[in-house]
Amino acid sequence: MDINRYLQEKKERVDSALEKYLPKRENLTLNLHKAMEHSLFAGGKRIRPILSIASFEAAGGKGERILPFACALEMIHTYSLIHDDLPAIDNDDTRRGKPTCHKVFGEAIAILAGDGLLTEAFRLMANRPEKDHSSCDDALVLDLINEVAHAAGILGMVGGQVVDVESEGRVVDLPTVQYIHTHKTGAMILASVRVGAKLGGAKEPLLKALTRYGESLGLAFQIADDVLNVEGQAALMGKQAGSDRVKGKATYPSVLGVEESKIRSRELVEMAGDALQSLGPEADPLREIARFVVAREY
Amino acid sequence: MDINRYLQEKKERVDSALEKYLPKRENLTLNLHKAMEHSLFAGGKRIRPILSIASFEAAGGKGERILPFACALEMIHTYSLIHDDLPAIDNDDTRRGKPTCHKVFGEAIAILAGDGLLTEAFRLMANRPEKDHSSCDDALVLDLINEVAHAAGILGMVGGQVVDVESEGRVVDLPTVQYIHTHKTGAMILASVRVGAKLGGAKEPLLKALTRYGESLGLAFQIADDVLNVEGQAALMGKQAGSDRVKGKATYPSVLGVEESKIRSRELVEMAGDALQSLGPEADPLREIARFVVAREY
Repeated sequence: MDINRYLQEKKERVDSALEKYLPKRENLTLNLHKAMEHSLFAGGKRIRPILSIASFEAAGGKGERILPFACALEMIHTYSLIHDDLPAIDNDDTRRGKPTCHKVFGEAIAILAGDGLLTEAFRLMANRPEKDHSSCDDALVLDLINEVAHAAGILGMVGGQVVDVESEGRVVDLPTVQYIHTHKTGAMILASVRVGAKLGGAKEPLLKALTRYGESLGLAFQIADDVLNVEGQAALMGKQAGSDRVKGKATYPSVLGVEESKIRSRELVEMAGDALQSLGPEADPLREIARFVVAREY
Repeated sequence: MDINRYLQEKKERVDSALEKYLPKRENLTLNLHKAMEHSLFAGGKRIRPILSIASFEAAGGKGERILPFACALEMIHTYSLIHDDLPAIDNDDTRRGKPTCHKVFGEAIAILAGDGLLTEAFRLMANRPEKDHSSCDDALVLDLINEVAHAAGILGMVGGQVVDVESEGRVVDLPTVQYIHTHKTGAMILASVRVGAKLGGAKEPLLKALTRYGESLGLAFQIADDVLNVEGQAALMGKQAGSDRVKGKATYPSVLGVEESKIRSRELVEMAGDALQSLGPEADPLREIARFVVAREY
């Protein structure tokens, strides 16, 4: 399969769904809408929603039911970037080569745009457009909302971000770096895979296999990101290479060194692939996404 | 009935439920937990959760099923206060007589504590502790999550907050002040009443009556707050009297004057009472809460 073409097709599907789901602009709150759209359509790779779709389809899911969840995952990811970039946290002026939300719209609107995206994600997941779907679905949807909230919240992404902030400029050990990564990045990657799998109808042992895939991929993804921050080209990344080191961020390269981090990242991608051994070609997109994650140049 | 005793009893019920629902403190994220608890247990009156309980019981609801929703409403209210108080928004150093979250824990942790509370609220609502409850409940719970997200989000509280921020220091007309108040405060007050009503089993025309009550009360509540900001005693309010005027906030007193605002607030409380005309003594707490709202001295 052609992974680049696959990613492009799915990205376009996610982008047009995001446009459809976003509430229409209102006059009085125009800047809020513009700020949300600025960050939501700033050229993100849509890794999380694409993972949820690939996992949904690997589990046998068909049709559009995954799209509200895929878009909610991207909204939550985008809100976290907006808040992370704020002067009080990472103080980043650019992201993906464009000025960050608060640089364009000011800090107040950026904080509120993040709050709005997070809230909108839950509204989207809880929304029941079809009148006639079975009540069994409702129990599943509640379970998925619960799973996403867990991954995004204080026991997941927010918790990881707090430890990341508090570790800045300090010498930290490997378990702390692992905590940061499994919570800050890994939890939402894993949730993306699991939400897709569950909505696609995955039961044990398939759900367990996809969970192991998501765990390995989440960690591989963050290590690859850390390595890219050291070695990547600023023009492709859209931010300064080496910015983690300047800020004294707790990263894999800072604890293990670049070469050891690369080895670890490749091992994790192999583990992610191994987790899918019992699956057929329906899991090829997941396999390719895992390889893509460590092969990125930006 | 003794409204002060009623409020005290319900407040204690909400407080102990909040303590029960909050995730246990973890070592690495200790400051995050402390920051959330600092703001969540800073002496709030618990108006929103108490309204949801009173409305639940007025509609015939019994037992504890309302408590996760009551607590979620308070968590969302608290997150909004933490973010509002940030230097980039209202820049308030004290609230309820205590230092605001970012003054104690720093801006980064305050932003993340707000994010954490908002996310936790949705996790709490989507959580299904009982194994055996009927699937009909699940559809209702999804509807309630949707209602809360709508009230808290860009078409509700966040939208109102954006217009509030952008109106600061400018001459605004009454429709703009009304937009700010119905969205920033009114939407969550109304949602509190409606969530309680729906979970208590209210159907039309009862739901409509309680909705009219919630709409009037929400606006009365904010006007009374604005008047108190002009006239209140700093020691009782826990913040400086007149701070809205200093900041050039768009308020009812700034547009209509204090006396006219008081009249409007009392009219709205009467309208709230009128909406309950078809209800019996089971709605007495709601009637008393409405009177209490404009009779507050702080």
